[in-house]
Amino acid sequence: MSEEIKQRIDQLIRSDEEADAPLYPEVSDSMEPDQVALLLESLPREARAECWAQVPVEQRVDVLVEMRTEARASLLRDFDSQALDQLISDLDAETLIELAESLPEDVVDIALARMDERQREHYERSAQYDENAIGRYVDHQLLILPQNSRVRDAVRLLRRETPLFTQHLWLVDRTGRYAGAVETRALFGQPDHLPLIELEEDEFEPLQATRSLREATEAFEHAEVSALPVVDDSGRLLGRMTQTLALELLHEHYEGQLMASAGLDEEEDLFAPVMRSSRRRATWLGINLLTAFLASWAIGLFEGTLQEVVALAVLMPVVASMGGIAGSQTLTLIIRGLALGQISAANIMPLLRKELSVGGLNGVLWALVIGFVAAYWFSSPGIGLVIALAIVVNIAVAALSGVMVPVLLEKLKIDPALSGSVILTTVTDVVGFVVFLGLGSLFLT
Amino acid sequence: MSEEIKQRIDQLIRSDEEADAPLYPEVSDSMEPDQVALLLESLPREARAECWAQVPVEQRVDVLVEMRTEARASLLRDFDSQALDQLISDLDAETLIELAESLPEDVVDIALARMDERQREHYERSAQYDENAIGRYVDHQLLILPQNSRVRDAVRLLRRETPLFTQHLWLVDRTGRYAGAVETRALFGQPDHLPLIELEEDEFEPLQATRSLREATEAFEHAEVSALPVVDDSGRLLGRMTQTLALELLHEHYEGQLMASAGLDEEEDLFAPVMRSSRRRATWLGINLLTAFLASWAIGLFEGTLQEVVALAVLMPVVASMGGIAGSQTLTLIIRGLALGQISAANIMPLLRKELSVGGLNGVLWALVIGFVAAYWFSSPGIGLVIALAIVVNIAVAALSGVMVPVLLEKLKIDPALSGSVILTTVTDVVGFVVFLGLGSLFLT
Repeated sequence: MSEEIKQRIDQLIRSDEEADAPLYPEVSDSMEPDQVALLLESLPREARAECWAQVPVEQRVDVLVEMRTEARASLLRDFDSQALDQLISDLDAETLIELAESLPEDVVDIALARMDERQREHYERSAQYDENAIGRYVDHQLLILPQNSRVRDAVRLLRRETPLFTQHLWLVDRTGRYAGAVETRALFGQPDHLPLIELEEDEFEPLQATRSLREATEAFEHAEVSALPVVDDSGRLLGRMTQTLALELLHEHYEGQLMASAGLDEEEDLFAPVMRSSRRRATWLGINLLTAFLASWAIGLFEGTLQEVVALAVLMPVVASMGGIAGSQTLTLIIRGLALGQISAANIMPLLRKELSVGGLNGVLWALVIGFVAAYWFSSPGIGLVIALAIVVNIAVAALSGVMVPVLLEKLKIDPALSGSVILTTVTDVVGFVVFLGLGSLFLT
Repeated sequence: MSEEIKQRIDQLIRSDEEADAPLYPEVSDSMEPDQVALLLESLPREARAECWAQVPVEQRVDVLVEMRTEARASLLRDFDSQALDQLISDLDAETLIELAESLPEDVVDIALARMDERQREHYERSAQYDENAIGRYVDHQLLILPQNSRVRDAVRLLRRETPLFTQHLWLVDRTGRYAGAVETRALFGQPDHLPLIELEEDEFEPLQATRSLREATEAFEHAEVSALPVVDDSGRLLGRMTQTLALELLHEHYEGQLMASAGLDEEEDLFAPVMRSSRRRATWLGINLLTAFLASWAIGLFEGTLQEVVALAVLMPVVASMGGIAGSQTLTLIIRGLALGQISAANIMPLLRKELSVGGLNGVLWALVIGFVAAYWFSSPGIGLVIALAIVVNIAVAALSGVMVPVLLEKLKIDPALSGSVILTTVTDVVGFVVFLGLGSLFLT
């Protein structure tokens, strides 16, 4: 799969360099829309636009839907009004929901005006929910029957329509509220007149449209079904969510976390324009600069000591980095625990005890190693002693912060995966420098 | 969901403290096995063992299967031979595959001896595949028919057996090789004598048992089906893989990456014994110590300069940390690109150009800011100039390494998510210190 995409990229960019060769051959002949989307994202913007021109017209909407927002916007920006018009000529509600944020408002209005009434209704209902809510991503292709239907009604419906993933038929009451599910395979061999209600599944919980996407992926991890019904606050059946979408969302969630941990946006385009990319990253660098200056300030408190014992300046990175690494190990363990819902007021104390013990043991071990190396390097037992003490203290502080920083951030509703590590290393840097240089000024000057 | 688990943890640990209160009330009455597993993992080891005693006997195997290896082993270690005997009295192949690595070898043998022949065959076939191969996790609950069957045979089968997720019936040829799929809903309204082959789906690619789990989750992201057939090298149908499993595996994959980035194991128990936990983490700290000493060595080259211009020592963290952050932003973007298969020999150069431009712009911007702050702080335009130059160089080097380090690691078949960031920060630390102190010794002494 990804091997194939790599070869295409090679091929595409190479053909660009050999002027004789045909530009961008055979893009997307056998490729699925998501593969074409990945390929387009991986190309520099000019090559991307040219490659886009080769995407078969009937595949274009699907490809755009699969693309990350920023890369998609880079293509849509070049659309003239005719191309836009063609693009939106026949969208369903789910597709327009995906594309709406990348389209000018008036284009969205035109697309809406062209939809049939039912799709427009779907769109308007979905658009009420925010970007992180299940309701926004409801799939309307499902088989619904009144709850008093019989087997023959179900079979008639199944012969007519065939949406993907039809593992269940959904029953609703007269007001459209969700009333239960019948598995299609349960219909085999049943008499025509049997009420469907008698074949009803052990009820499973419908998803609430207002809940977060993360809750939907959790639900799918133990609901052994390929689609779950989605209901609004009054219990009305809005549609369904499929497991394929849940898989995609989980993927995006983790990708978002990875990117956020470096201060990047999940939708970041590999080939975003330099100016825009610089501006966005500048913020994260600026925040980090403040914390770096804080560390410098801490060191500045000991200028006199540093002048007298320059070995301290040489060894500073060792103290800071051992604290940072030990702390990030604890931090990562706790962030995972928080994500799994495994950390609560009650088990924090035993956890803290355990992490402090682990930190204590490793602190003493590495303090001995580092102490001897430093004492030998600078032929000074005093330096060895000072750095050994500083390492023990800093690794203990790291364990403490590794537990407390993410827990406090979570309490403040700040994602610890995003900012936990910046705060933690600021703590271990400042504490490390102050303790190390402080001890140095006490014992070595 | 996770809210519920939190409350249970609170309740469990609190009840431990109030001696009067009943110990561990109503654990797992309404809880699914995966929730019980999460709960058990979140408890300190003694509380865990006591809580385990409350888990209904009939749920125990399912709970153990859901637990992470290390936490599971902590429970199994306390099993006496009678309890083990009970545990393995009625296992199917999939369950034994999951539990085997946590059980003594002779216990696995007894469990195998008790299985019926078919399950034992399944087990032995699955056990041939390694931990990361699709073949190991094959699900054997599926409906298989000879390829010359007719609609009536399918309907008869469907009336008798009903495994979960039966969206398709699978067809095999006389030698057991995969021959196609028929969707159950396609059977409705078809004449009894119609050959199934005429209802065959647009063929979808079966999964190869030897391929990696990651490929399976990728396949599910665009195959709109709830289960895919798995075949061995000769095309024989081994069983199927369900989308629910794919979702679980994706979750584990990302959790593994998160943990690996801090040098931790995915199976790490929140309450692992202190000694074991310390020993495991010591390795990562040791590797990191070597890189820290490398940075110290670089600083040590300039002891004389530091003694003369102590401001350089104070400002060192700023140079190192700006390089580290800028580099990790590029690194993260490239790691994502590599994971998506979007980076190849051909687009590396344009990417490098872009990242160097972004780095250049941000380098100049922050060099100016930092230069002025430093010049003002130490009342020395020279210091301002030196740090500004060092920042520009280090951020450019960071951009270069951010692209090249993960690409080279990938070439060497080392996971860049695991070690990319250690190597990158070593580069930016060493380069940052050498350039900064080198310029300082040229211009300021």
